[in-house]
Amino acid sequence: MTAEECVPAAGVFTTNKVAAAPVIVSRRHIAGGCARAVVINAGNANACTGAQGELDARATAVAVGEALLCSAEQVIVASTGVIGVQLPAERLLAAVPEAASELDNRSGTHAAEAIMTTDTFPKETAVSLEVAGRRVTVGGMAKGSGMIAPNMATMIAVLTTDAPLTSEGCDAALRLAVSQSFNRVTVDSDTSTNDMAVLLASGAAGGEPIDVGSPEFDRIAQAVTAVATELARMIARDGEGATKLVTVRVTGAVSDEDADKAAFAVANSPLVKTALFGGDANWGRVAGAIGRSGAEVDPNAFDIDFAGITVCRGGTATGFDEDEAAAALSASEVEIAVNLNLGSGSAVVWTCDLSYEYVRINGDYRS
Amino acid sequence: MTAEECVPAAGVFTTNKVAAAPVIVSRRHIAGGCARAVVINAGNANACTGAQGELDARATAVAVGEALLCSAEQVIVASTGVIGVQLPAERLLAAVPEAASELDNRSGTHAAEAIMTTDTFPKETAVSLEVAGRRVTVGGMAKGSGMIAPNMATMIAVLTTDAPLTSEGCDAALRLAVSQSFNRVTVDSDTSTNDMAVLLASGAAGGEPIDVGSPEFDRIAQAVTAVATELARMIARDGEGATKLVTVRVTGAVSDEDADKAAFAVANSPLVKTALFGGDANWGRVAGAIGRSGAEVDPNAFDIDFAGITVCRGGTATGFDEDEAAAALSASEVEIAVNLNLGSGSAVVWTCDLSYEYVRINGDYRS
Repeated sequence: MTAEECVPAAGVFTTNKVAAAPVIVSRRHIAGGCARAVVINAGNANACTGAQGELDARATAVAVGEALLCSAEQVIVASTGVIGVQLPAERLLAAVPEAASELDNRSGTHAAEAIMTTDTFPKETAVSLEVAGRRVTVGGMAKGSGMIAPNMATMIAVLTTDAPLTSEGCDAALRLAVSQSFNRVTVDSDTSTNDMAVLLASGAAGGEPIDVGSPEFDRIAQAVTAVATELARMIARDGEGATKLVTVRVTGAVSDEDADKAAFAVANSPLVKTALFGGDANWGRVAGAIGRSGAEVDPNAFDIDFAGITVCRGGTATGFDEDEAAAALSASEVEIAVNLNLGSGSAVVWTCDLSYEYVRINGDYRS
Repeated sequence: MTAEECVPAAGVFTTNKVAAAPVIVSRRHIAGGCARAVVINAGNANACTGAQGELDARATAVAVGEALLCSAEQVIVASTGVIGVQLPAERLLAAVPEAASELDNRSGTHAAEAIMTTDTFPKETAVSLEVAGRRVTVGGMAKGSGMIAPNMATMIAVLTTDAPLTSEGCDAALRLAVSQSFNRVTVDSDTSTNDMAVLLASGAAGGEPIDVGSPEFDRIAQAVTAVATELARMIARDGEGATKLVTVRVTGAVSDEDADKAAFAVANSPLVKTALFGGDANWGRVAGAIGRSGAEVDPNAFDIDFAGITVCRGGTATGFDEDEAAAALSASEVEIAVNLNLGSGSAVVWTCDLSYEYVRINGDYRS
């Protein structure tokens, strides 16, 4: 991924205190507010690799800078893979010139494929819209299917736009988008050492620079959020071993924060996720999860629907057709809706079910 | 489980806001500081059952009181099983007289078997010690193998002693024991609606009443903690689908609270647990878990040992023999030791691995 010059850019990085070397290096590089290239390797996370790991991440940026005739500081480095093994830097650096020589307008799809680890499909999407009389496009690619949790996951997302966003505009649009998308996905409640989402704005669409606070900014930020949300849903759908995409929607909470707590407790519950894998409308496990979530809950007030089927009203069973419920739960997309009936706080979180395959992938493979 | 008279007793109950009917009723009954009998049913949790559920729990206590010629307030009621289904109260109440008639000094084991749900073995233990010249015994039984998490789990534990503890002594001894035992077990991070641990002290060993603050109290509290700890370890070992008991030991944290955060993050990580199932010394996942735990962590200072094998020092790999590690991890008990090297805070948490069998049990069975 490369731009013609150093263009406005912003990044959001893992909150994990054991941050990988590429995270440390890229945080420093993007602090200047511009970037020209993003280089990503899969198979080795370059995390828990100490000073050598940081030297290797830096050397990768230097090599890419040499190939593209730009400074190393204009290169963002990302890694995904096994933690605790030194990067095979010699092999990686030797391959940089060839990778750089193959860059063209269609290499985005190759990149989206190259960064897959346990992903089963590449994740790319784009939207196009007219802003101030000009057509602009926002595109993105991402990887990540296990170790996925709020506040970034083993997730790497690269978003680009030809809109003339300023650096501050990039930062604001990316933060808004991440809060509504990647930070609302959980596969297994594990937050990784390597998470990173970046947005580069080339300005190639032309026009005046677009900064925070303008109607043009709002429209582009919406588009960035739409692209990030689509990628986030793809990540949940492709959760390790997943057979279905699960949307957890909580309404009626006393606050949005409380709704978040309840939604994540449901989405992270192994008992809820195994029940969904089994096609069982076991709403008692949802009730148990919201009760322990820390959110304010009136045990006699909450309602639960499974895949559109009323299963609980006022905290107790309504009685429902088990066959109808099983049929509804066999779909590839399922929604669990909880109304706490206490206020106007709401939240949406995406996750997936928990299957034998998750255990196989993570029990057999040092990923 | 029954005593000759209403004896000093105390209880600790789930923190889940969607508390089951028996929890609500028993909390009220034990508030007086004494109890005579504990009645437990398995198969139906009597949770999310509204006003009818509370009436049914109360009716159970009344029926037991009639059979034992005591007041309903002296009876503690506990339930475990499916959430959201009304208790088949008629069948349960009809069986109370027969159950009461079979009570004798050896019926403890029958009770420990009767309360099993997905447990694979009954859980009983006892210790005997001399206090102030008299031999006293502390015994206990428990059930619980899934939906197990800190601050009580789908866990029911009944502890008894013939020591002459006061009501206040019971309460203090039980709270100390629970904080060091049941609240340090996690199978799947789900806290149930029905958790309950009670301690009854018959005083049958004779001697003066023992209250908080005496050397005799400290010795009995230690014994109660030992019994509860043994039961807690049995619960972790019998975690749904577990193939091994896992002890997570964190030292060198800046505080005990921080050590707790780190230990629970490791013990709750599905990625760590699947790696243990696979016999893979994947310490990078442990590093990832402590990094996201919220505990203070210096990424260049922590050490990790897997089953006694040095795998990480100062945050990076030490290199280790994979075959030796795999052999060590195939044991039925495994310890993960993390030293954060920052202070003197420490914590121990027990858990188990995550296997195909966990998915099968919870995907196939409405438990």
